[in-house]
Amino acid sequence: MTMEFQPGRRQYVKFTFFKVGADWRRQDADGRDEQKAEFAGVVARWSEQNLIRCYSTIGTRGDVDFLVWQVSYELTDIQRMTGELLGTALGGWLTTPFSYLSMTKHSLYVEKYAGPGQDKFTRLTLAPGEHKYLFVYPLTKIREWYGLAQEERQQAMNEHIAIGRTFPSIKLNTTYSFGLDDQEFVLAFEGDDPGEFLDLVQDLRGSVSSAYTLTDVPIFTCAQTTAAEMLDMLTGARQAVPA
Amino acid sequence: MTMEFQPGRRQYVKFTFFKVGADWRRQDADGRDEQKAEFAGVVARWSEQNLIRCYSTIGTRGDVDFLVWQVSYELTDIQRMTGELLGTALGGWLTTPFSYLSMTKHSLYVEKYAGPGQDKFTRLTLAPGEHKYLFVYPLTKIREWYGLAQEERQQAMNEHIAIGRTFPSIKLNTTYSFGLDDQEFVLAFEGDDPGEFLDLVQDLRGSVSSAYTLTDVPIFTCAQTTAAEMLDMLTGARQAVPA
Amino acid sequence: MTMEFQPGRRQYVKFTFFKVGADWRRQDADGRDEQKAEFAGVVARWSEQNLIRCYSTIGTRGDVDFLVWQVSYELTDIQRMTGELLGTALGGWLTTPFSYLSMTKHSLYVEKYAGPGQDKFTRLTLAPGEHKYLFVYPLTKIREWYGLAQEERQQAMNEHIAIGRTFPSIKLNTTYSFGLDDQEFVLAFEGDDPGEFLDLVQDLRGSVSSAYTLTDVPIFTCAQTTAAEMLDMLTGARQAVPA
Amino acid sequence: MTMEFQPGRRQYVKFTFFKVGADWRRQDADGRDEQKAEFAGVVARWSEQNLIRCYSTIGTRGDVDFLVWQVSYELTDIQRMTGELLGTALGGWLTTPFSYLSMTKHSLYVEKYAGPGQDKFTRLTLAPGEHKYLFVYPLTKIREWYGLAQEERQQAMNEHIAIGRTFPSIKLNTTYSFGLDDQEFVLAFEGDDPGEFLDLVQDLRGSVSSAYTLTDVPIFTCAQTTAAEMLDMLTGARQAVPA
Amino acid sequence: MTMEFQPGRRQYVKFTFFKVGADWRRQDADGRDEQKAEFAGVVARWSEQNLIRCYSTIGTRGDVDFLVWQVSYELTDIQRMTGELLGTALGGWLTTPFSYLSMTKHSLYVEKYAGPGQDKFTRLTLAPGEHKYLFVYPLTKIREWYGLAQEERQQAMNEHIAIGRTFPSIKLNTTYSFGLDDQEFVLAFEGDDPGEFLDLVQDLRGSVSSAYTLTDVPIFTCAQTTAAEMLDMLTGARQAVPA
Repeated sequence: MTMEFQPGRRQYVKFTFFKVGADWRRQDADGRDEQKAEFAGVVARWSEQNLIRCYSTIGTRGDVDFLVWQVSYELTDIQRMTGELLGTALGGWLTTPFSYLSMTKHSLYVEKYAGPGQDKFTRLTLAPGEHKYLFVYPLTKIREWYGLAQEERQQAMNEHIAIGRTFPSIKLNTTYSFGLDDQEFVLAFEGDDPGEFLDLVQDLRGSVSSAYTLTDVPIFTCAQTTAAEMLDMLTGARQAVPA
Repeated sequence: MTMEFQPGRRQYVKFTFFKVGADWRRQDADGRDEQKAEFAGVVARWSEQNLIRCYSTIGTRGDVDFLVWQVSYELTDIQRMTGELLGTALGGWLTTPFSYLSMTKHSLYVEKYAGPGQDKFTRLTLAPGEHKYLFVYPLTKIREWYGLAQEERQQAMNEHIAIGRTFPSIKLNTTYSFGLDDQEFVLAFEGDDPGEFLDLVQDLRGSVSSAYTLTDVPIFTCAQTTAAEMLDMLTGARQAVPA
Repeated sequence: MTMEFQPGRRQYVKFTFFKVGADWRRQDADGRDEQKAEFAGVVARWSEQNLIRCYSTIGTRGDVDFLVWQVSYELTDIQRMTGELLGTALGGWLTTPFSYLSMTKHSLYVEKYAGPGQDKFTRLTLAPGEHKYLFVYPLTKIREWYGLAQEERQQAMNEHIAIGRTFPSIKLNTTYSFGLDDQEFVLAFEGDDPGEFLDLVQDLRGSVSSAYTLTDVPIFTCAQTTAAEMLDMLTGARQAVPA
Repeated sequence: MTMEFQPGRRQYVKFTFFKVGADWRRQDADGRDEQKAEFAGVVARWSEQNLIRCYSTIGTRGDVDFLVWQVSYELTDIQRMTGELLGTALGGWLTTPFSYLSMTKHSLYVEKYAGPGQDKFTRLTLAPGEHKYLFVYPLTKIREWYGLAQEERQQAMNEHIAIGRTFPSIKLNTTYSFGLDDQEFVLAFEGDDPGEFLDLVQDLRGSVSSAYTLTDVPIFTCAQTTAAEMLDMLTGARQAVPA
Repeated sequence: MTMEFQPGRRQYVKFTFFKVGADWRRQDADGRDEQKAEFAGVVARWSEQNLIRCYSTIGTRGDVDFLVWQVSYELTDIQRMTGELLGTALGGWLTTPFSYLSMTKHSLYVEKYAGPGQDKFTRLTLAPGEHKYLFVYPLTKIREWYGLAQEERQQAMNEHIAIGRTFPSIKLNTTYSFGLDDQEFVLAFEGDDPGEFLDLVQDLRGSVSSAYTLTDVPIFTCAQTTAAEMLDMLTGARQAVPA
C-alpha cells in the first residue's frame, strides 16, 4: 500500500536530516542492529500511508548522516512519524541538525511541468522517480526580486527553465516554505550523475534569476537507499555482514 | 480560573521554545511519564493566573521540540514559571534554544484591530483564539525604515494591512521587543490552514514594507495542543498508550 | 564595607552572564543548596571591596541564567573573583555564554551627566541605583560614524541625549571596550518599568546616531536581586522553601 | 596497488576533517593505540583502490585534528570508506567539523596545466606530489563574477595565473563543488614552504579576480604524514614511543 | 636556555586559546594539581628551545580560559608542543576555541620598527617584552584596500603609525596569516595599562586605514603570568594555597 493520490490537494513536504551522536557507535554491534531494525520498522509502517524516501549523506557531508524525506496530505502525519522516529531506542542518540518544512503549490511561472514521469500529475503532487541521487537545498531570494515586474520575473524564469532543459535527465521538485520555515523554497533535484548536476548549477550561475539569490546553502548530496542500508552505512557496509 | 482582564495595562509576552536532550529519551517510559506529568502540572497551576498556550514543533522544526506561550501583567510571573518549569525533573534535560520576550503596545498604524474575536479588546490585551496553528517569528526592520516620513510608513503599512485582509481567517498578534530582547517585534499569526498562511506571506513579499525587513527568521510553525499531548509528542503518540 | 571612591581613576567594568548546565538540576536539592550558598559566599566576600550587583535572566532570555556585574579599580580583582566563582562546586556546571569587559571614560559628548543620583560623581565612577531592572547591550558603530566631523557627531549625540531626557526615570551607564573586547561600548540602562525602556528605545530608532549602529545585540533584560535569590530562581522560587 | 588511471573520467574528491572529542584522550594509551591501529588499517585497505593522503592539523588549527583526502572514480567508495572510518572504535569519539565534496572538471580558463609532475595528466585527474604541506580552502565567488563577459573573466584569470607562476614551487589542484556542496570550488595547494604560500596569497590580493571573492575561509594548513603518525600526533609524538 | 636567534629567517607564530570543560572543575583539587603540574612541565621543556609566553583570560573573556603564545623557526615544533599539551591528562578536558597561526614578514610600510626593546631586531624576529598585558586580535581588510595605489596605502599607514606613536608605551607585534589561516594578520599589542590601549584603539577609529577593516574581532585581553599561575587562575587564586 502507498499514499493515495488526492487530485487538487496540496501536500506537506518534510526533509529531516538526522545525525547520530558519535557515542552511539561505542555500543556493541548487536544492540545497534536491534535499534536500527526498530527505526526501519517505523519507516516501513508509515510508508504504507505516506510517500517516504531514505537517503544516506555519509561521506557527502560532515554535519548530517541521513535524510528521511516524507510527503503527506496531513501535517499531523509528519509530526507523528517524526515523534515516533525520535521515540525509538536509536532516537536517544539522534539530533536533527537540518530540517525543512514546505508545501506544494501551483507555480507562477510554469503552466505545466513537462519532466519525465510527471505528465499525469499537476505541480501539487510530488512524484519522485528512482534516481540514485537527490540534491536538496533551501532557497531564499533577495527582496529586490519581488519588486521586479511580473513580466521581468517571467523572462528571468524562462531563461532559467531553458538552461535546465539542456540537462533533461535532471528532474526538479520545487516546494514552498514562505511563513512555515526559514527559507522561501526547498528545491530537490533528482539525478543519476552528480557531475551532470554540477555542470547544470555552474551553467545557471550566469542567469539573471541567479543574481537575485540571497542564500542557497547548505546543499545536500543524498544517495537514495533503503532504510536498512541507510542505517548500516552509519558504520560502513562491512558492519552489516557477518565477520 | 484564568487571567483577569485589566483594561489599559500593557502585558508581558513570552515565547519559550524548549528542546529535550536526546539522552532524555534513553530513560524508561514510566520515568518519563512521571516527569511529563510534573511539568504539565506546573503549566496547569500557572494557567490559573496567566494566559498560557502549549504548542508542539516536533516535525516542523529540528532545533526545538515545543513552545510554551505565556502572557501576564507581571514580568515576575514569567520569570517564576520559567524557573519552575526548569526546576522540574524534566528540566534536567531541557534547553531553551529560542526565547522571545515582548510586550503589548498601542500601534502607531492601526487605530483599532478589527479581527475576529478581538472587537472588545484593545491592542494592549492579547486574546488568542482556538486555532490549530501558531506561526511565530521575530522581526527587525532596517534602520532606513525609521528614517522614512511617518506618512510614508503609514502608506506602506496600509498596503501591508490591506494584503493581510485578503486572508481574513489569519489573525495577527503584534508584540514589541525594542530594548528588551534582540528583535524589534515578535509576530504571532493564528490560523487553521498552513497553506493559507504560506500564500499570505508570499503575497506580502512584493509589498513596500517587506523591502525594509532586516531579519524575519527563524519562523516557527507550532501546532496547538494540551501540555500533556505536547510532551507525549516528544516520542510519538504511540508512546502514550499502553502496548 | 564597600568599594572606596578614588576620584579621577578609571574603573574596570565586567558583565559576566552565567548559564548552568541542564544536568546540574538533576542533583538533589540539598546538594544544590550547599553549592548555591558557597557561590553566594564568594559574591558576599568580594562585595566588601568591589561594587557587585546580581541579576536574574531566567525567563527573560533562554541562553543565560544570571548576570554578575562587577566594578573595580583593579583588573586583577575581576580576574580573581571570576576564577573563584568558577572554582566553587557550582562552577563545575557553569558556562559563561556572554562576557563583556569595559572601562569608564570621560565622554567626548557630555560635559557632565545630570541624571538622578549621579550629581556628585564624574563619568569615571559608576554608581548604580536601586532600580528593579538593568538593560544591557554591547554596541558597535559603523566606521562611517568615525569619519563624520566632530561637530556632526556632537549634533547627533545632542539629539540622542534629548530623546533620552524625555524618559528621566531611565538612567544610562556608558562604558568603553575599544581594544579590550569585541564591542566598542557596553551600555547598561537602569529602570523600574520595562515598558518605559521599550518606548525609549523605539523612539531612538529615528535618530541620526541610530542610523550609524553596526550592532546592538544581544539585549539582556536583567532583574536585580540578591545572590541567593538569583540562584534560587534557577529552579523557581518554590524550590527554595521546604515542601 | 593503487588507483588505476581512467583517462577522460571525472573524479570525486573528498576532504574530510576529523576532530577527536577531548574525552578520548582520557583513555589509557594502550586502548588508544589499538584504536589508532584499526583506523590506520581502514585507510591502508582503501589506499589499494583509491588515492588517499593523510594530514595533521594539530597545532595549525584549533577546530580540527586531521584531514583524510580521498580521490575516487566512484562516489560510493567515498561513502563506504567514510562509514568504515566512523565505524571503527576510534569513530566513537570522532566528529567531522568540516567536510568538502567536489569533482574534477575541465577548466574554462586553462587549456592545460603546466605545473611540475602533471604534464601527462589532464585536469580530470588529480596527481598530488610529495610536498610537505597542503593548503586547502573552499571558495565561492560573488554572483557579479558570473555576470562578467567571458573575455573579462579570461583576462582576470590570466592575471591570476601569471601571479601564480611567479611561485613555481606551489602546485594548485582546483576542484568543483557547484550543486554538490556549499562552496563553488575547493582549492588545494601543495608546497614545502608555508612562507612562500603566504607570500603568493598576499600577492594575489591585489588581482582583479580576488575582488570577486565572496568567501575563501576557513583556510587549512595541513602537514602531510602517514595515517599512523597523523593519529600519534593527537597526543604529541612522545606518546608514540615506549616510556 | 632559550630560542637561538637566527638572523634573516622568518618565524612561525602561534596563538592557542584553551578552555577547560566545566566538568574538569568537579574533580578533587589534588588530582587537578597533578594535572596542572604535568601541563606546566611540557611548557617548561619547550621553553628551552622556543619562545613561549603564558597568559590568563579568566575574567576578561567568557569563551576561553588561557593563551599559550609560541614562536619558533619550525612549524613542526608548534605541532609537536600542541600535541603534547593536548596529550597531558589535563588535555582530556581541553578544547581550543580560538587558534591563530601566522608568520613574521618584512613590512611593506615600515622600514624599521623603532619601538622600545626592538632596535637590534628586524621585523622577522619577535621579541616580546615584560608587559603585563597582551591584546590580541585577528585582522582582515576589505578587498578594496588591496585595490588602492601603493602610495595611497602608504599614506594611510603613515597616519596609522603616527597615531600609534602618540602612545609610545604600547608595542605592536604584526604577524601575517595570508593563506595559512582564516585571517590576514594577527596583531599582538603589549602594554601595562589597558586604559591606554583602549584610548589608542578609539583614536585609530577615525583613521583612513580603519575604514578598510573587514573584521578585527574577537579581541582578547590577556594577562601575562607563569604557566603555573595561569592554571591556578582557572579556579581562583584561593585554590592554590592550603586551606
